[in-house]
Amino acid sequence: MGEAQVSLEHLFRVFTKPEHKDSKLAQIEQHLSDNILDFLSQHVVTKKTSLEEIEKDFSDSKVPESPEFVSTHAESLLDKLVAHSVNTYSPTFIGHMTSALPYFHLPLSKLMVGLNQNLVKIETSKAFTPLERQVLGMMHNLVYDQPQSFYDEHLHSAAHSLGAFCSGGTIANITALWVARNKLLGPQKGFSGVAKAGLAAAYRHLDIKNLGVMCSKRGHYSLSKAVDVLGLGRDQLLTIPAPQQTLDPAKALRIGKRYHEEGNKLLAIVGVGGTTETGHVDPLDELADVAKELGCWFHVDAAWGGATLFSSRYRDRLKGIERADSVTIDAHKQMYVPMGAGMALFKDPQNANAVRHHAQYILRAGSKDLGATTLEGSRNGMAMMVYSALHIFGRKGYELLIDRSIDKAKDFSHMIDKARDFELTTTPTLSLLTYRVCPEEVQEKLKHADAKTRNAINEKIDALVVAVQKQQREAGKSFVSRTRLEAPDYPSQCITVFRVVLANPLTSHNDLAAILAEQHLIAKETQAWKELMEFVRESEKVAS
Amino acid sequence: MGEAQVSLEHLFRVFTKPEHKDSKLAQIEQHLSDNILDFLSQHVVTKKTSLEEIEKDFSDSKVPESPEFVSTHAESLLDKLVAHSVNTYSPTFIGHMTSALPYFHLPLSKLMVGLNQNLVKIETSKAFTPLERQVLGMMHNLVYDQPQSFYDEHLHSAAHSLGAFCSGGTIANITALWVARNKLLGPQKGFSGVAKAGLAAAYRHLDIKNLGVMCSKRGHYSLSKAVDVLGLGRDQLLTIPAPQQTLDPAKALRIGKRYHEEGNKLLAIVGVGGTTETGHVDPLDELADVAKELGCWFHVDAAWGGATLFSSRYRDRLKGIERADSVTIDAHKQMYVPMGAGMALFKDPQNANAVRHHAQYILRAGSKDLGATTLEGSRNGMAMMVYSALHIFGRKGYELLIDRSIDKAKDFSHMIDKARDFELTTTPTLSLLTYRVCPEEVQEKLKHADAKTRNAINEKIDALVVAVQKQQREAGKSFVSRTRLEAPDYPSQCITVFRVVLANPLTSHNDLAAILAEQHLIAKETQAWKELMEFVRESEKVAS
Repeated sequence: MGEAQVSLEHLFRVFTKPEHKDSKLAQIEQHLSDNILDFLSQHVVTKKTSLEEIEKDFSDSKVPESPEFVSTHAESLLDKLVAHSVNTYSPTFIGHMTSALPYFHLPLSKLMVGLNQNLVKIETSKAFTPLERQVLGMMHNLVYDQPQSFYDEHLHSAAHSLGAFCSGGTIANITALWVARNKLLGPQKGFSGVAKAGLAAAYRHLDIKNLGVMCSKRGHYSLSKAVDVLGLGRDQLLTIPAPQQTLDPAKALRIGKRYHEEGNKLLAIVGVGGTTETGHVDPLDELADVAKELGCWFHVDAAWGGATLFSSRYRDRLKGIERADSVTIDAHKQMYVPMGAGMALFKDPQNANAVRHHAQYILRAGSKDLGATTLEGSRNGMAMMVYSALHIFGRKGYELLIDRSIDKAKDFSHMIDKARDFELTTTPTLSLLTYRVCPEEVQEKLKHADAKTRNAINEKIDALVVAVQKQQREAGKSFVSRTRLEAPDYPSQCITVFRVVLANPLTSHNDLAAILAEQHLIAKETQAWKELMEFVRESEKVAS
Repeated sequence: MGEAQVSLEHLFRVFTKPEHKDSKLAQIEQHLSDNILDFLSQHVVTKKTSLEEIEKDFSDSKVPESPEFVSTHAESLLDKLVAHSVNTYSPTFIGHMTSALPYFHLPLSKLMVGLNQNLVKIETSKAFTPLERQVLGMMHNLVYDQPQSFYDEHLHSAAHSLGAFCSGGTIANITALWVARNKLLGPQKGFSGVAKAGLAAAYRHLDIKNLGVMCSKRGHYSLSKAVDVLGLGRDQLLTIPAPQQTLDPAKALRIGKRYHEEGNKLLAIVGVGGTTETGHVDPLDELADVAKELGCWFHVDAAWGGATLFSSRYRDRLKGIERADSVTIDAHKQMYVPMGAGMALFKDPQNANAVRHHAQYILRAGSKDLGATTLEGSRNGMAMMVYSALHIFGRKGYELLIDRSIDKAKDFSHMIDKARDFELTTTPTLSLLTYRVCPEEVQEKLKHADAKTRNAINEKIDALVVAVQKQQREAGKSFVSRTRLEAPDYPSQCITVFRVVLANPLTSHNDLAAILAEQHLIAKETQAWKELMEFVRESEKVAS
């Protein structure tokens, strides 16, 4: 059943002949082209299926022995995979940073695959290499705004690099800190540099006990991966508590100085330009001063918020980013490019040379091959998607999208403020916010409770938030994520909150109102609500 | 000109309305679907355009201010980008590892982008998570062939991981060595482990001078990146000369022991399953013995050759791979999946825990989120392309493709052997080979020349090979790459050779004959040929 013939003819066919226009795969394609929202709402099932149930469809560990007809396979993709995917295009999917994409990326993705270029090397990418360099230049310009002569000199220079294109923000952050590490511990009198001699030798030579990276507790988990993989050790990621969600410059300076006094060396301060959990922006300008005073690298992780620079109205929220030695921006977030497009940008185009590498058959010295200064080797032509989006939206188009997202987040925060039984826990700096469900009388109670009672009540609310978030997710109509953090009102305790990312241009005011209403309905029916109310009443009795 | 209106309506349109069927982008898409070879031959220009010339089209460093109509942009993509891309589908493009892809990947790429899942987390990927785990399981099975109970236990276990899916072989190799490093220097009495405490502390605690990785000189350049980024230092990549193109186990053992005697610790031996330059396979079984004796990790970089395991006839060429602690395989190479699909497989499903990581809002402990043990964070659904290819080809389909590629390489090597004025420098183990143009009389001369004359002649031949390779590339009909290596016949000297990768199923015997004929024609017209002949004649005069 569905077994295709194993013959050279069959194999040649899949390489040389497209599927017939009436085939299942062609139908899928047509449906995607005609109306992707309709395709998704028709094929992605909304009713809850447990992961364990889904896993049954993906549990055969044997490579299938015989070929399958493309159309048979397409049917099974629809049933097993598409049906149980997440509808990231849905206007009510506001829990994560993936959202609807503009239509033009669908045909472009086909063009990218059809061309199948490899950007590690000009011989396998040709025009894609200058294109990627231009994209990096444009983003560099957006951040650093250097004079024309600067770009004339460096954009296509074989000896320089304005940044590294990569599969995502994690690799971008690792790349930036890798460059920082190799530059700080670079070749010097009597020492050939960390890239050659290794980290232990570098510590010995420079008499360093430890090398550390500092960020607030809201820093992205990729920084922890970075200090691990780079050999610094996760203990050397100095995460500073941040009940106000941002890194306090005075505290950063104090802790940095103490770290130095203890015989360590601070490699970098990482300022966040839009934390993943609440969208807050660290005081970048002041942190640049701190980095300067401590003599360390200043990296800004603007994977989420970097695109805010397109907006004349809001770009000031990232003030100071232009002083960063390196900046991470993900195009697959607020630039609405398909998953897999991150960038690390370097203020000084010399810096990427700290990780430059050559190989004989590939990446010859003096060539403009991009692979010489990237962590990744073979890479696809994703830069084309960024290039096209930059042209088709233009700065003004992105500005409108960014402004609208932030305005929508403000609107939603006002809705939450006005709704009884809800509590806004962080206000939106960018298009993220957090809040929680909390009965009005409990809110009142919390204001006057002693610390012990407050903590106990908050734990009960945590249970309520978890219950509501899970039930709403399982109902399948909308998705809001949840996280745990120290909120401004409860700095000494981690509380569980709903987390909302308002990036999907299709999300409307009414969608948001409906999501809130649904949460309210769910909440009041939960056991957790009852337990919370009972607990509050009991504690009142005890108090009186 | 071509300026689109900046309005919410326009922005909404690109998100909600597909391009009209007659639009330029739709036309491009249709052409790709109907006949990709025709599309490429019509739009990719073959005549040489210098990189400098192409760069002019990509030199504006300003983000365009205003939006552009999609169709206007599509026109410019064709003119500037597609025209100056590399036709990797061409049957005569046999210089690198990128080739034609089967048709079904074109609509699948659209489906992937349309679904826009993020595999870092189940909440943004759902069925894609078990799918990716199944793909890793199938590839694990292909390499390690464990009993069914093994896969039943581990395939979907939250506490285990059969491998890491990543954007390519470089990240896969880095991931494998990262796991190896963290495992070797893991938590132990009085030491919290390298992941937490860092590399320098680990060296101090274990009294290690240096940690090294061993491979032959033909090892991939990503290993050099790996020892750099992981903090070991590039000096600690012990690259063993390999005139026979493979790592000699006796030599490996001897050098490994000496390394240990000097107070160092060998972290890993890397065996190559298909070197990038010549396609040779290290004696994996014997190297597994050496690794065992030295007590180190054994990694096999089978980014290219791993797919050979699909072939009953040739899978023995990778004998011993099943003893590796970790294996790298690129699906975007001989599995004919679009660029961006690499895998690191782990024999022991516990091992990936050495790099496991959790974060609050994402990757909660106990979850099956894939991001917890991968180097990358957000990732796209490329695993679907591998899943589909595994089903549509089946093992037998891949077997046919692999067998045909190796047979074709043998055929080409015979053609080179028979052609006068050509010299085969390495014979194909897999579907790669190297050769050079060398006039018959010079070949004769080389056999009897003294070392000094031989070296001098070889340098002249190098110049000839470079000249021919460049001119052939610039003529645009075909592409053969070149590299420098120590060949079996000239072990003490690096020589320049043509490098051929026979992966494109569309490449025929006649294509290969034409490529050879073209090289011969070009060679005889070069100044380098004349100089070579003259040099040989002169040296004869001197000798007589």
